[in-house]
Amino acid sequence: MGRVTARRRVIRIRDGAVGARPDTLVTEEPMEIRLNGKPLAVTMRTPGDDFALAAGFLVSEGVLAGADEIANIVYCAGATDDGSNTYNVVDVRLAPGVPVPDITLERNVYTTSSCGLCGKASLDAVRTTARHALSDGPAPMRLEPALLASLPDRLREAQRVFDRTGGLHAAALFTADGELLDVREDVGRHNAVDKLVGRALQQGMLPLAGSVLLVSGRASFELAQKAVMAGIPVLAAVSAPSSLAVDLAAETGLTLVGFLRGASMNVYAGEQRIVLEETQPAAG
Amino acid sequence: MGRVTARRRVIRIRDGAVGARPDTLVTEEPMEIRLNGKPLAVTMRTPGDDFALAAGFLVSEGVLAGADEIANIVYCAGATDDGSNTYNVVDVRLAPGVPVPDITLERNVYTTSSCGLCGKASLDAVRTTARHALSDGPAPMRLEPALLASLPDRLREAQRVFDRTGGLHAAALFTADGELLDVREDVGRHNAVDKLVGRALQQGMLPLAGSVLLVSGRASFELAQKAVMAGIPVLAAVSAPSSLAVDLAAETGLTLVGFLRGASMNVYAGEQRIVLEETQPAAG
Repeated sequence: MGRVTARRRVIRIRDGAVGARPDTLVTEEPMEIRLNGKPLAVTMRTPGDDFALAAGFLVSEGVLAGADEIANIVYCAGATDDGSNTYNVVDVRLAPGVPVPDITLERNVYTTSSCGLCGKASLDAVRTTARHALSDGPAPMRLEPALLASLPDRLREAQRVFDRTGGLHAAALFTADGELLDVREDVGRHNAVDKLVGRALQQGMLPLAGSVLLVSGRASFELAQKAVMAGIPVLAAVSAPSSLAVDLAAETGLTLVGFLRGASMNVYAGEQRIVLEETQPAAG
Repeated sequence: MGRVTARRRVIRIRDGAVGARPDTLVTEEPMEIRLNGKPLAVTMRTPGDDFALAAGFLVSEGVLAGADEIANIVYCAGATDDGSNTYNVVDVRLAPGVPVPDITLERNVYTTSSCGLCGKASLDAVRTTARHALSDGPAPMRLEPALLASLPDRLREAQRVFDRTGGLHAAALFTADGELLDVREDVGRHNAVDKLVGRALQQGMLPLAGSVLLVSGRASFELAQKAVMAGIPVLAAVSAPSSLAVDLAAETGLTLVGFLRGASMNVYAGEQRIVLEETQPAAG
């Protein structure tokens, strides 16, 4: 795990003063994800939690829904000329009887629908590949805005590497009571969520009913997709959502909160899970 | 071009006050890039500059090095059941005689080397696919830190959509004198750079000798790769670089500046293009 950061020489310029010193950077390396030995994708990631990253990626793609569907996960040796292991190729082998989907790499999620490539096709693809329903858990979720407002600070407190390198995206999972379940960091925003979901899968926690996913940046379609595929009913982002993320949330029943800063936030979909006391906005 | 932003209803919570109103969001839609009719990649992008995005993507992948290598670029109709055009599938047709590379999608850039998948393989792949040498232009570039420090504000001034939606990454191209050549925005950070490079290619400006690429976020390996592939000798980022971005810069001679904020910045590689007056740091 010493590979999460790397040291490099840097020349610092501060108001005209110039000096050289070593600096701590976030490590970025490619990782290939294989499914039953077949190469599926390459992602640029921060080493660490590699098996969780591979498992979480496969949850997002609709391949995995539970830990019992995995036979094992291994690093592939022998990819190099001298047979050594670079620890950058991970093979997920499915349990006997689990169907191996015919995934054609990045086309999978976007082009399942027959309507041609468009936003609607992307929404349809998530709906048809989702393995879990979004669930509040035993009781309906009713999140106080004050509780949501407290989460970004708790994410920051839990981030270990960001403050040293400034180069990491973070994702955290909370209970409906605001209890921090897990936090992951990665040079890639998608990877941080995949690692979080993959670890939850490995621990038998999928679907993540009644949980809140917080991301340190924007809420893109793909991050909303990852929440839906893991059965997470609430996605909160520190920055802006995209139009397609909002559309996906509205269609799947995902609660989507953006611009979560201080005591302020925007609720873009699924407002039934947020306690809105002062003014009850009109429906629609 | 009305699709760059979209309106959605949002519930705003501000210090306990709750109200509903329409909000402006950045549009995100999938786009498929085809090469001579063959599907190559799908990217989630903000519509607009689609042909430039496709062309710039192919520059980054080492397929294109000049505008004369393109026969034409078209939107593909007929991808839908009713034969209508979703304007989300773009086909780049190469000029007669230009070799069509055997690109296996996302594996291309990372696994050209025979050493197995690792950071070094990624560096090797860029070196072997680069079509342009990094060039300062007619005279050696000598950038004053004060000039670099002025660029982020000028990028912000030139950003048209960000302030409305908060959801866009931006990339800008400057001359060595600080003249703004172009700025592009996109929901995807890679897309903003691809659009910038693609427009430069269409205008016959490749390789972009003597230019400075500024990005609004972090400097990842892939952004450094895009600079190198377009022949851009200086990459400056508002936030942190990754270890592999620094390694790529050091190996290719790219000048890499990070944490460009106010009068402060870090120079991670290629410092010969920066005027460092006060203290001349030791080499190596």
